[in-house]
Amino acid sequence: MIPETALPRHLNESVQMKSGYLDFRIEKLGECSMPSPFSGMQFIDDRRRAVYHRDLADISGFFRSGKEPPAMELAGPRERIFFDPSDLSCGIVTCGGLCPGLNDVIRAIVISLFHHYGVKTVYGFQYGFEGLVLRCGHKPLELTPQSVAGINKFGGTFLGSSRGPQDVSEMTDTLERLKVGILFAIGGDGTLRGAQAINDEARRRKLRTAVIGVPKTIDNDISYIDRSFGFLTAVSEARKAIASAHSEAYGARNGVGLVKLMGRDSGFIAAHSVLSENEVNFCLIPEVPFSVENLLSALEERLRRRSHAVIVVAEGAGRHIPGGPRECDASGNVRYGDIGLYLRDRIKEHFAGIGMSLNMKYIDPSYIIRSVAADANDSAFCLLLGHNAVHAGMTGRTGMVVGNWAGRFTHVPIRLAVSERKKIDPKGRVWSSVLAATGQPAM
Amino acid sequence: MIPETALPRHLNESVQMKSGYLDFRIEKLGECSMPSPFSGMQFIDDRRRAVYHRDLADISGFFRSGKEPPAMELAGPRERIFFDPSDLSCGIVTCGGLCPGLNDVIRAIVISLFHHYGVKTVYGFQYGFEGLVLRCGHKPLELTPQSVAGINKFGGTFLGSSRGPQDVSEMTDTLERLKVGILFAIGGDGTLRGAQAINDEARRRKLRTAVIGVPKTIDNDISYIDRSFGFLTAVSEARKAIASAHSEAYGARNGVGLVKLMGRDSGFIAAHSVLSENEVNFCLIPEVPFSVENLLSALEERLRRRSHAVIVVAEGAGRHIPGGPRECDASGNVRYGDIGLYLRDRIKEHFAGIGMSLNMKYIDPSYIIRSVAADANDSAFCLLLGHNAVHAGMTGRTGMVVGNWAGRFTHVPIRLAVSERKKIDPKGRVWSSVLAATGQPAM
Amino acid sequence: MIPETALPRHLNESVQMKSGYLDFRIEKLGECSMPSPFSGMQFIDDRRRAVYHRDLADISGFFRSGKEPPAMELAGPRERIFFDPSDLSCGIVTCGGLCPGLNDVIRAIVISLFHHYGVKTVYGFQYGFEGLVLRCGHKPLELTPQSVAGINKFGGTFLGSSRGPQDVSEMTDTLERLKVGILFAIGGDGTLRGAQAINDEARRRKLRTAVIGVPKTIDNDISYIDRSFGFLTAVSEARKAIASAHSEAYGARNGVGLVKLMGRDSGFIAAHSVLSENEVNFCLIPEVPFSVENLLSALEERLRRRSHAVIVVAEGAGRHIPGGPRECDASGNVRYGDIGLYLRDRIKEHFAGIGMSLNMKYIDPSYIIRSVAADANDSAFCLLLGHNAVHAGMTGRTGMVVGNWAGRFTHVPIRLAVSERKKIDPKGRVWSSVLAATGQPAM
Amino acid sequence: MIPETALPRHLNESVQMKSGYLDFRIEKLGECSMPSPFSGMQFIDDRRRAVYHRDLADISGFFRSGKEPPAMELAGPRERIFFDPSDLSCGIVTCGGLCPGLNDVIRAIVISLFHHYGVKTVYGFQYGFEGLVLRCGHKPLELTPQSVAGINKFGGTFLGSSRGPQDVSEMTDTLERLKVGILFAIGGDGTLRGAQAINDEARRRKLRTAVIGVPKTIDNDISYIDRSFGFLTAVSEARKAIASAHSEAYGARNGVGLVKLMGRDSGFIAAHSVLSENEVNFCLIPEVPFSVENLLSALEERLRRRSHAVIVVAEGAGRHIPGGPRECDASGNVRYGDIGLYLRDRIKEHFAGIGMSLNMKYIDPSYIIRSVAADANDSAFCLLLGHNAVHAGMTGRTGMVVGNWAGRFTHVPIRLAVSERKKIDPKGRVWSSVLAATGQPAM
Repeated sequence: MIPETALPRHLNESVQMKSGYLDFRIEKLGECSMPSPFSGMQFIDDRRRAVYHRDLADISGFFRSGKEPPAMELAGPRERIFFDPSDLSCGIVTCGGLCPGLNDVIRAIVISLFHHYGVKTVYGFQYGFEGLVLRCGHKPLELTPQSVAGINKFGGTFLGSSRGPQDVSEMTDTLERLKVGILFAIGGDGTLRGAQAINDEARRRKLRTAVIGVPKTIDNDISYIDRSFGFLTAVSEARKAIASAHSEAYGARNGVGLVKLMGRDSGFIAAHSVLSENEVNFCLIPEVPFSVENLLSALEERLRRRSHAVIVVAEGAGRHIPGGPRECDASGNVRYGDIGLYLRDRIKEHFAGIGMSLNMKYIDPSYIIRSVAADANDSAFCLLLGHNAVHAGMTGRTGMVVGNWAGRFTHVPIRLAVSERKKIDPKGRVWSSVLAATGQPAM
Repeated sequence: MIPETALPRHLNESVQMKSGYLDFRIEKLGECSMPSPFSGMQFIDDRRRAVYHRDLADISGFFRSGKEPPAMELAGPRERIFFDPSDLSCGIVTCGGLCPGLNDVIRAIVISLFHHYGVKTVYGFQYGFEGLVLRCGHKPLELTPQSVAGINKFGGTFLGSSRGPQDVSEMTDTLERLKVGILFAIGGDGTLRGAQAINDEARRRKLRTAVIGVPKTIDNDISYIDRSFGFLTAVSEARKAIASAHSEAYGARNGVGLVKLMGRDSGFIAAHSVLSENEVNFCLIPEVPFSVENLLSALEERLRRRSHAVIVVAEGAGRHIPGGPRECDASGNVRYGDIGLYLRDRIKEHFAGIGMSLNMKYIDPSYIIRSVAADANDSAFCLLLGHNAVHAGMTGRTGMVVGNWAGRFTHVPIRLAVSERKKIDPKGRVWSSVLAATGQPAM
Repeated sequence: MIPETALPRHLNESVQMKSGYLDFRIEKLGECSMPSPFSGMQFIDDRRRAVYHRDLADISGFFRSGKEPPAMELAGPRERIFFDPSDLSCGIVTCGGLCPGLNDVIRAIVISLFHHYGVKTVYGFQYGFEGLVLRCGHKPLELTPQSVAGINKFGGTFLGSSRGPQDVSEMTDTLERLKVGILFAIGGDGTLRGAQAINDEARRRKLRTAVIGVPKTIDNDISYIDRSFGFLTAVSEARKAIASAHSEAYGARNGVGLVKLMGRDSGFIAAHSVLSENEVNFCLIPEVPFSVENLLSALEERLRRRSHAVIVVAEGAGRHIPGGPRECDASGNVRYGDIGLYLRDRIKEHFAGIGMSLNMKYIDPSYIIRSVAADANDSAFCLLLGHNAVHAGMTGRTGMVVGNWAGRFTHVPIRLAVSERKKIDPKGRVWSSVLAATGQPAM
Repeated sequence: MIPETALPRHLNESVQMKSGYLDFRIEKLGECSMPSPFSGMQFIDDRRRAVYHRDLADISGFFRSGKEPPAMELAGPRERIFFDPSDLSCGIVTCGGLCPGLNDVIRAIVISLFHHYGVKTVYGFQYGFEGLVLRCGHKPLELTPQSVAGINKFGGTFLGSSRGPQDVSEMTDTLERLKVGILFAIGGDGTLRGAQAINDEARRRKLRTAVIGVPKTIDNDISYIDRSFGFLTAVSEARKAIASAHSEAYGARNGVGLVKLMGRDSGFIAAHSVLSENEVNFCLIPEVPFSVENLLSALEERLRRRSHAVIVVAEGAGRHIPGGPRECDASGNVRYGDIGLYLRDRIKEHFAGIGMSLNMKYIDPSYIIRSVAADANDSAFCLLLGHNAVHAGMTGRTGMVVGNWAGRFTHVPIRLAVSERKKIDPKGRVWSSVLAATGQPAM
């Protein structure tokens, strides 16, 4: 995976940035006063920081102007912890759409709590934030290493999920009533905002309740985080759909395989899938404007020359179509109209219009992609995400997510993680590599 | 795979059947007068027959009434052949939709012609029957063992394909002009009818041109043939889509995973997929009538009890919906309206109507299924289909397909193979097993 | 899969066979007097028989000589059953080496007992026949549909297994003490003999205990049965090992990929794997004698011509090497010395001797092959094996296994199933097809 | 993948390091004077550097002592190039053992040379460095985009490979005679040293020949490079072998699954595989000493408690066994005796000695792992490695490899890359995570 070099806007203007905005400092419930029972381990020194920038020039800039460059706290076990494991209950909740690895993360958290720290009570809240609201009637499950054994060989989420927010006060009531010391919230943008709201409410009520997020975005679009779990598995599955589209396109005269992939705001899945399966002629992503007319004429040229073509379009690329439809989902996220169906129909129309035969095969593999089990690489990644989430929570950290930066696991404040979406830089290396792989013209 | 016990109608009335209709005798161009160069092989005696019936009572019935039971010629190499390999050109054409194993069959035919018999010229006609029509402008490829090496690791068809018939006279002209001695036509119902028409025209013109079919139907719906290539691979892929649907359904409150699978007239893919992935609650196939109302109430009952459900529907099951739409494809096959989208919308409406929340996930994996490469089992099967097609052609047999019956490769006249579709018997073992696996009520 | 045409010896001499030996009649505990609770099903008539022979000439021979041809009882649910499900305990045991699908069969039996018949108590005996012997100290598990949910996604056996026989009397004591009405024994030759011994002992004691076998042989070498579960999955996995061997061989000058596959007495896995992966130059099986010298000179010729070669050898092919070593396993099965290591060393010696460089890559994938989960096709097959085993047991049948013949599920007496091993006929279609695929000379 | 934090020895003593040793400056043949024909791309500024260290404290140390921290040149296309593509011949060679992705890299280099730069002549030298020695008689292939189409779907190397060095002068003669401007050498340690020797000789002869390496080490043990191609695919395959070992171990009383994985000097494959498949109880790697006695008693304790265990051992872990055997391979690399077989026998002996039954299943999947095709993630990675190797070569850079650091592609001098092996730090995060996953005691 190529980390995108385009920094979030405020970090790009690095020397002038406002220091407050760039705060990577993590909130804590209090002092860590107990020795960790987690033996045989190298503990991480709280002062270790992963530097944010990777280019020498950027980093030198800070030092030259007498500032310390932005850096993130490293994740990992600490020598002293905040909670007494023998007297701690924890909770886990999964929210939003499916993503490969959800069960791996659930399992890793449960096993780390039990085996590394000796925690005995872990609630699994069912069906997302609904499970934290008494009225909804979902009873929390009691999770144990036995009950989560092997769940990571299955896709989906063992706990169930749901979209959309719930009443923060009611959710906090439940945590208070069940004496939950650490809530692990696995979910995307909206979920993390909800987790932050619970954290704020818990602070207001002066509860000893920490909220740790594990960022879930199959689109890999969370800022300050190189890689989110499930992304690489999704790319592997997307590759199969592209190979199918290629077989279909190749097997018919003027065959066009059109694949719609996830990516509402960011085209990472589309871009990386294209790099992994080198039979794609056109890749369209939300970050790079294109005109349908230019696509049509480039496609026409390609078909006249080679008789078949493959197009990959990220779901959010529709934003570039003037007057395209707009929808909202249950979580209130704005969605653009279905670009896949739109392109399918526009392409058909075009070739019908010029009297050129066309064999259009449209593939939308989204549910198939997101519902598979994590592959080996993502499984290992999820294991460590789960472990590190537990380590963070045990030290009383709160309002943070476990991230990954330049290959290390890090702590990132939720507020920072949700401040801005990570996107492909149209002038960066990812997109440049996609252009080199497809050979597509500017559109 | 369970061979369906429902015999074609005219064979069920076995003792009274008209002998002409049941003719398994294969047409030949002439006497086999040359020794086969294919050494080190056990040759098949022309008189060997695979008995059609498998039940003792059926077979006894024939003998008791003094008749020989119907039986098919066995496929395989013969000691003497009709064509002189040193002076023979052959052609291969693939028609219709993709099916796993097409490239395996192409490769097996080419390799058998070259290595087993020493044939030197094999044309690959491009884009289906279009490739046999000069006007269309597709030049035939010259195929060799080198040019087809490894193609079976890819899905699709190396030769390209197309749907729909072409002018029989023009196609025969091309064969005559290129002096094609054996045409191998790999395709479904329509293709085989076209192959028969070419055969009839070649007979009329008194050409020494044989036409051998390799039946391609991912639906496995050709009569007198237990198994067609690609079917088992398709079931494996369909199973993954069902597992995805289950993950999606399980992960949401009142989650419904609805999977539409191939099967215009016959529900074999749906039925076998359901047997392979035991998380399906409702299976709907063309052969078994159902009412949408009954489905909806059974689904409602299931969701109230278990909160999630998986439905598998074969594409042709829509015929049971009164007033459903009707379409035609390019080959003139009647298609029913899209049952998948129809059910998706009806289910949504129903639950909206009764104010019950619903999480509908609709999956249509058809293109992904049919475009994959053959699995190990189908690869071996395709190899032998290809070899046996060559053996049949070399003996001057014509107007026939290579079939498979009770595990043996057989010769079946095209007219017989296309006389009637093979279907699941609603009172037979396949459907009974599906009901035992799903536990679905009568609908 | 091609059913081998070589019949067991006594059936080949078909007209003269001794009728007693060929008895396909199934032993029963008593009359079926209760109505089956298994509704919505087509019941199988007890008189239905699947004819053993498939060639018209063989069958005609019987009728001409006034005899009925041999035929097997069809498996499936019956209208009336022997046991009262409300008062029935059952047991399941898995013995011998791993085989893909073991967990599918366990799960199918448990689910069919609970859901189709309403049985409430199913014991899972742990670690094979040891689990039936009190002294060994393994407590039987209580199996339910919940406890076996999802186990079929994992390879191996949920119950554990062991090799070797146990005291028949002690095992029968356990069944008697636990009031087990039906014991399902999943295992190979040795296990089935043990099951028969338990059956004999139970008859002697006049217990109402039925013993139903599910034949497990990854080698697919049980007589009167076309296909045993796990075989096709094994072939798929073996294919991957062969593809690896080919990559290794192709990638080195005079590269030789040597793959040893299972097959102590019968070369079905080797043969079918070779048909599925067409890069093999030499296939060696127990049924076909060969001389190492001939192999070496053919290999030398191949390397001089093409610089790489792939050899597949079945584990039992060593029997053709004069003076090869002999071993016994825990079950008392005679094993020949490791032919793979032997050939590896002989080949290395030979080429060292003639001063020709060689890159030998030896692959023994046995444990990897046999420990995977069943593929889609085998999963469906195991489901139906399990269902049919339950149907058979509920009618009080005993001393039998569930078989599969010409695509139907059948009942076969254990004594018949273990009377003789199924083998590849060196003059039959399977071996002939392997020769056609490899092009190997007689050796 | 977690980048190991243990820096090479000389970088760890960072403030005191000798600047000469740490030279990341890349040698060039001359000035880049031609405009790149590679349009539509963001070019990389030659002055961009990826900082080597990732910890803020390390970096601050340099600045505080007035030094610039070590940093690597970024890879990527440059605005101006050195070679005239219209008059350039290139060569590709693959050396050493197989590794997933070799064909992807070959293909990517060929396609980039042809399509991005318009180069017309690319030689594929066969069978490693042998192919560069006239006497050996291997003729170079002429590679084109057509001839390499689809090769990346196959494991192994399309060009063949060999081990061991060849005469540098003879190899340089061949390059001179064929007027090769850029030689791309894909291989490990030994190969890169050979490539450096060719580079030195070419400099001595004042040839306009650049040598670009693509580091191939399935063990991922090259310094200054986070990730080498094929590593993640290898981990995925290794995971399957571990899952098999677990099934075998679980299925037998006192079952022990012992898996030997690659890793002569570095245990990255073993460690990451263990993280991806969480059923391993003991992981042994070359970097962490252990005593067999301690392993045996820990294993005994585990078996008494849980009845089964899985052990993963890296091939080089044998170095910790006093008096273990030593071997050399054809490339002169020292190898320790086969630790897998050694442990297998020691464990068997131990349990035989104490009269405890044991079911040992030993799996050595090395050839199966290294010979598969690259997975999606590695395919994309190889594509970019190949592109970046071409970009580097076109600018006249030489004596360097394309690396990857903190997610960016970089240029690393060969001398630096081979100066020291990358290893797992026994006090670092990777090993600590493995301990957390296995729960194994210190041994």
